[in-house]
Amino acid sequence: MTLAEVAKEAGVSPPTVSKVLNGRSDVSSLTRAKVESLLEVHGYRRRTSAPPRSPLVELVFHELDSVWAMELVRGVESVAKANRATVVLTRSGTRHAPAPDWIEGVLRRRPLGVVLVFSSLPAEVKHRLRARDIPFVIVDPAGDPDPDVPSVGSANWAGGLAATRHLTGHGHERVAVITGPEDMLCSLARLDGYRSAMTMAGLPTDPRLVRFGDFHVRSGFEHAMDLLNGPERPTAIFAGSDLQALGVLEAARLTGLRVPEDLSVVGYDDVPLAQWASPPLTTVHQPLRHMAEEAARMLFRPDEPGRTAQRIALATHLVVRQSTAPRG
Amino acid sequence: MTLAEVAKEAGVSPPTVSKVLNGRSDVSSLTRAKVESLLEVHGYRRRTSAPPRSPLVELVFHELDSVWAMELVRGVESVAKANRATVVLTRSGTRHAPAPDWIEGVLRRRPLGVVLVFSSLPAEVKHRLRARDIPFVIVDPAGDPDPDVPSVGSANWAGGLAATRHLTGHGHERVAVITGPEDMLCSLARLDGYRSAMTMAGLPTDPRLVRFGDFHVRSGFEHAMDLLNGPERPTAIFAGSDLQALGVLEAARLTGLRVPEDLSVVGYDDVPLAQWASPPLTTVHQPLRHMAEEAARMLFRPDEPGRTAQRIALATHLVVRQSTAPRG
Repeated sequence: MTLAEVAKEAGVSPPTVSKVLNGRSDVSSLTRAKVESLLEVHGYRRRTSAPPRSPLVELVFHELDSVWAMELVRGVESVAKANRATVVLTRSGTRHAPAPDWIEGVLRRRPLGVVLVFSSLPAEVKHRLRARDIPFVIVDPAGDPDPDVPSVGSANWAGGLAATRHLTGHGHERVAVITGPEDMLCSLARLDGYRSAMTMAGLPTDPRLVRFGDFHVRSGFEHAMDLLNGPERPTAIFAGSDLQALGVLEAARLTGLRVPEDLSVVGYDDVPLAQWASPPLTTVHQPLRHMAEEAARMLFRPDEPGRTAQRIALATHLVVRQSTAPRG
Repeated sequence: MTLAEVAKEAGVSPPTVSKVLNGRSDVSSLTRAKVESLLEVHGYRRRTSAPPRSPLVELVFHELDSVWAMELVRGVESVAKANRATVVLTRSGTRHAPAPDWIEGVLRRRPLGVVLVFSSLPAEVKHRLRARDIPFVIVDPAGDPDPDVPSVGSANWAGGLAATRHLTGHGHERVAVITGPEDMLCSLARLDGYRSAMTMAGLPTDPRLVRFGDFHVRSGFEHAMDLLNGPERPTAIFAGSDLQALGVLEAARLTGLRVPEDLSVVGYDDVPLAQWASPPLTTVHQPLRHMAEEAARMLFRPDEPGRTAQRIALATHLVVRQSTAPRG
């Protein structure tokens, strides 16, 4: 398929197709969409004179204040450096997709590839990256990437299972869980891991002990205050993030409960601050830096045509520190 | 001063001067040094046909694992974005200066400017950046930048003074300090602030209560274990970083001391985790994000010829939370 044939089929001139390919803005969005979908359908690839790529790897966040962010930066940076490339860091969009203007900058910079910390990508963005042979991959510690996009995540269900089995194995029967938002698959997977572990231990799941939070400290604190000051308080709490677990520790302190003597606490993520908590947190290690490294490495692998999008889920494992103990 | 005149004075051909200006590697290091120092001495500036700058701001760290790093990234990113520029993030060198190969990458990328999180820059690096009109500025939360380099720091002495006066104002007389490394000016400035506050309160400074750490959790923990289990234990500890303060909290827990009832603790930095500690830390707020923003803004200000390098020290202030109380 040549550029002229694409132009003919789209009913535009070859220079217009060229403009679309080069990311120019003087093309109507309707024309752009039509040309890009034809380029995509016909698997168009530049045969000659492609502009040289910059030795850059784009790393895109929707926010930079998560305790995850620095671990992910470190992972991408180390792989980029090993491949003599440099990291461009952008912040854009919402939890679910990059902002529309972000893609223009990427096309101007012509990076070697793009690592996105997002759950999904609009179809138009995918088309434009693919038409230019710019590989992309999603690192997703939290959500549910589109099936047609390469992604690296981790084993959330297994993590929830391991955390809860550790607690039931210590004789805890009233085990509460504070998971993430109800609309994120990782929250549901971890919660299902918890339910399975309770069932495996022959324990009922009391719906009053199941809480949805937002992964931040405050939601851990508030749910824990409610759980610890209510009737039949739990002797163990599995928090959906290390930040929520810090909130649980503070609630225990204010309630006069000692951790781990009176209350066992398990976190999730194993970000650096987990080991600095007082007491150091037992938590599920999510290999964030390793996930980012895997994602960056996927950009540098030779393309195998016709291969379906790769989805990798790295293993999680429990790190036992001092916030858990046998039931008193 | 024209390029031809520089070439003549250096005893090389004009194309060789061109190569030096363009960062090419096929020039001997001796020739490069000679040409660059002449360019610097004569204040050479390209008059025409300078290659276009990329809308990039370089941000250079020596390590990415500090709790400071993400705050600094956020500050630089927001100013870059407001100026329609993108952040390139590199990690390079040691605590004191970037690695020699780093500068080659910068010259290839031709950024709008460079923000360095370093204490000093080798003279050769300064020459090469200046010869190409690439502005640079140092953000230095910890050290002592060269006087001929624009820099943004914060008021360390005043921070140490405020932290210690808060404790003596609460009736504490045996106040210990765990500061940073002895070879960093910020450690000494904070320590001197502590000494002045003790003197202002009419209290002696017991040398056994003055400790040098390394800003990490473990040094706070180890010094605090020693202080709290020795004779005449302090009733308050001023830690040189929030991480060291977390180590102090853990030492208090293991020693069976309650914070703040039995021991008051003040941190330094006010990184996000300070408010998540249990109890939330009273600490000296070092405006890291604001410092990074100021530094990035300096890159976008029109050049004033002959101006001496600007040095900004932003104010610090005490944030009182729940880890300090009147002496029991």
